[in-house]
Amino acid sequence: MKNTAPTQAPVELLICTKCRVMDAPCEEDVRPGAHLHAALAGAEVPGVTVRAVECLSNCSRGCSVALRGPGRWSYVYGNLAPEQAATLVEGALKYAATPDGLVPWRERPEHFRKNCIARIPPLDAFDQTEETA
Amino acid sequence: MKNTAPTQAPVELLICTKCRVMDAPCEEDVRPGAHLHAALAGAEVPGVTVRAVECLSNCSRGCSVALRGPGRWSYVYGNLAPEQAATLVEGALKYAATPDGLVPWRERPEHFRKNCIARIPPLDAFDQTEETA
Repeated sequence: MKNTAPTQAPVELLICTKCRVMDAPCEEDVRPGAHLHAALAGAEVPGVTVRAVECLSNCSRGCSVALRGPGRWSYVYGNLAPEQAATLVEGALKYAATPDGLVPWRERPEHFRKNCIARIPPLDAFDQTEETA
Repeated sequence: MKNTAPTQAPVELLICTKCRVMDAPCEEDVRPGAHLHAALAGAEVPGVTVRAVECLSNCSRGCSVALRGPGRWSYVYGNLAPEQAATLVEGALKYAATPDGLVPWRERPEHFRKNCIARIPPLDAFDQTEETA
């Protein structure tokens, strides 16, 4: 995997290598997420660091991935299959091309549009705002 | 809401005030998350800043909240009802009492144990580690 990371605020694509696909018993030692991670090992994803992680706590809707970076909204996507590496690359590149992680909904890969598990605003989102409570 | 925030790395409890409860049509202008947020307005949650946010993209399993802070794992919890303010306070205080956001599973409120939507490691989680891909 080439990690060119040209920006000051690099993007990470975290892939859970532990989650099982629900309703698809998996006796293998290697989980679907690990296959997906391996499938990305040769991909060109400039500005994006791909990492294996062990649990994003989205076990009921795995495989799971997260896109995140400093100053950006974090997104968790689920229900991914090992053959969807190209979808992940497309989504990660679009995410990395934004300053804040907010890719317009219609521009996201279809799988991302239909399988967003959650998102969290950037840590500094409220630095300049009033307290709300 | 008192925000004593005694630590250098304050914790935020983000409450989505836009999500509807699934299977419970809501014609009200004020959504369940807004009621939950309002219920916390008088609560004592030392070290935790409570904020209303407009979408955590967990619409199918709302009300949704997120707990997060610098250097901490971020957690998203769902399926919350307005009357669960005390559960949120308990969970937020336990989260804030850890250095990294990792509350042992058995010590979390029961609702948190059963309704964790996703979690994301802290931004600096991989600063000291080798690339994995």
